[in-house]
Amino acid sequence: MSIGKHHWVIAEGFIPEKGPRPDDPKLSSHETACILNAGDQQASIELTLYFSDREPAGPYRIMVPPRRTLHLRFDDLTDPEPLPRETDYASVFVSDVPVVVQHTRLDARAADLALMTSLAWSS
Amino acid sequence: MSIGKHHWVIAEGFIPEKGPRPDDPKLSSHETACILNAGDQQASIELTLYFSDREPAGPYRIMVPPRRTLHLRFDDLTDPEPLPRETDYASVFVSDVPVVVQHTRLDARAADLALMTSLAWSS
Amino acid sequence: MSIGKHHWVIAEGFIPEKGPRPDDPKLSSHETACILNAGDQQASIELTLYFSDREPAGPYRIMVPPRRTLHLRFDDLTDPEPLPRETDYASVFVSDVPVVVQHTRLDARAADLALMTSLAWSS
Amino acid sequence: MSIGKHHWVIAEGFIPEKGPRPDDPKLSSHETACILNAGDQQASIELTLYFSDREPAGPYRIMVPPRRTLHLRFDDLTDPEPLPRETDYASVFVSDVPVVVQHTRLDARAADLALMTSLAWSS
Repeated sequence: MSIGKHHWVIAEGFIPEKGPRPDDPKLSSHETACILNAGDQQASIELTLYFSDREPAGPYRIMVPPRRTLHLRFDDLTDPEPLPRETDYASVFVSDVPVVVQHTRLDARAADLALMTSLAWSS
Repeated sequence: MSIGKHHWVIAEGFIPEKGPRPDDPKLSSHETACILNAGDQQASIELTLYFSDREPAGPYRIMVPPRRTLHLRFDDLTDPEPLPRETDYASVFVSDVPVVVQHTRLDARAADLALMTSLAWSS
Repeated sequence: MSIGKHHWVIAEGFIPEKGPRPDDPKLSSHETACILNAGDQQASIELTLYFSDREPAGPYRIMVPPRRTLHLRFDDLTDPEPLPRETDYASVFVSDVPVVVQHTRLDARAADLALMTSLAWSS
Repeated sequence: MSIGKHHWVIAEGFIPEKGPRPDDPKLSSHETACILNAGDQQASIELTLYFSDREPAGPYRIMVPPRRTLHLRFDDLTDPEPLPRETDYASVFVSDVPVVVQHTRLDARAADLALMTSLAWSS
């Protein structure tokens, strides 16, 4: 089934410091864009990152195979440039096939975890 | 009143380890799809689960009686197969009557609880 | 300005036990429907609560004055009947003028707080 | 790319007490409206705040440069008047160019942090 939209925006973005478990990727602070490609064609996505005080970074090129989900960690981005922590940003995804995008942050700065998630905005 | 949509997508999905209270279903880690069928006909829903590295699982068949809500726990799914913990997934719901779906995670890995929720994406 | 929609649905609903500060309304577990009436006419809203195992409760009648917000606590509802804690429910709001509704839960069962929020679904 | 909507509503609003780290802006309680202006023209935004028991405050005038994001902290607002803590409010954004708005709260009242976020409602 082909389901979703071609344009997605996450207006919130901020990767906190890693916190007290810096060597555990799952339990240190991170942000994720969860992308579902429920269709039968590979999704080629261009991701652009926006900042408060400089020109945008990107495009980052992301592939999601057909009938697969990708939980893209923003701290894994390296090409064309890594995303610094403790920096306000926003992200725009442009896909060649319909997908659905949801944003999640895990904040591990305190001893315990805080979580938040939201559907991204689509058009 | 019949209210809602026929197609719903939750792009985020990950059931953390149960945490320090594994025998208390309410206080161990879980994810829920909260489904409202406000109409006067039973909702027959087909749920498909998508993964990062394998073909989708399902369909899971879910019934929601008229004028009822169902808080479906993903860790209760067994037929056609259970959903493993600590695994990235996404879910697509196709209902024969209009419903509304909201996604919630309780993460109990730390000593305290973290919560997150989002409306699912509809079409 | 008149802005919003007439129908709103919160598919998630569950008021946890009050937690270790039962006499402090702000720091004990609760759920809120935050309603904005940005228009110049009073909003008359009918709220119906749906459950997993019984017929719906309501309608509850809620008034929001023009140019005001109301943070409606579900544990304040009494007429026609109170809403029990630790019970799955969902809610449907029907307003005679456009409003906007957002849902928030504060979970105080653990020593610390957990929060979650989502825009409700509108039509 | 010009992407987004002109009207955005955050129905939830409440800035908790600062908590145990009052001198650390990032780790004391706050609320943020994350605004993305992905277009090539500056966004001029009028923000109005609504309350439960008084007439609205504003308009607050906010500028977001082209191709920039602004994480607007509500506790930074001063003109025409500051926003008190521990007060229910809601907010309406009217922009002259398309933008996207997401709402986030960090609650630091307890020893650890709680987070929540939601896409705002657009029209």
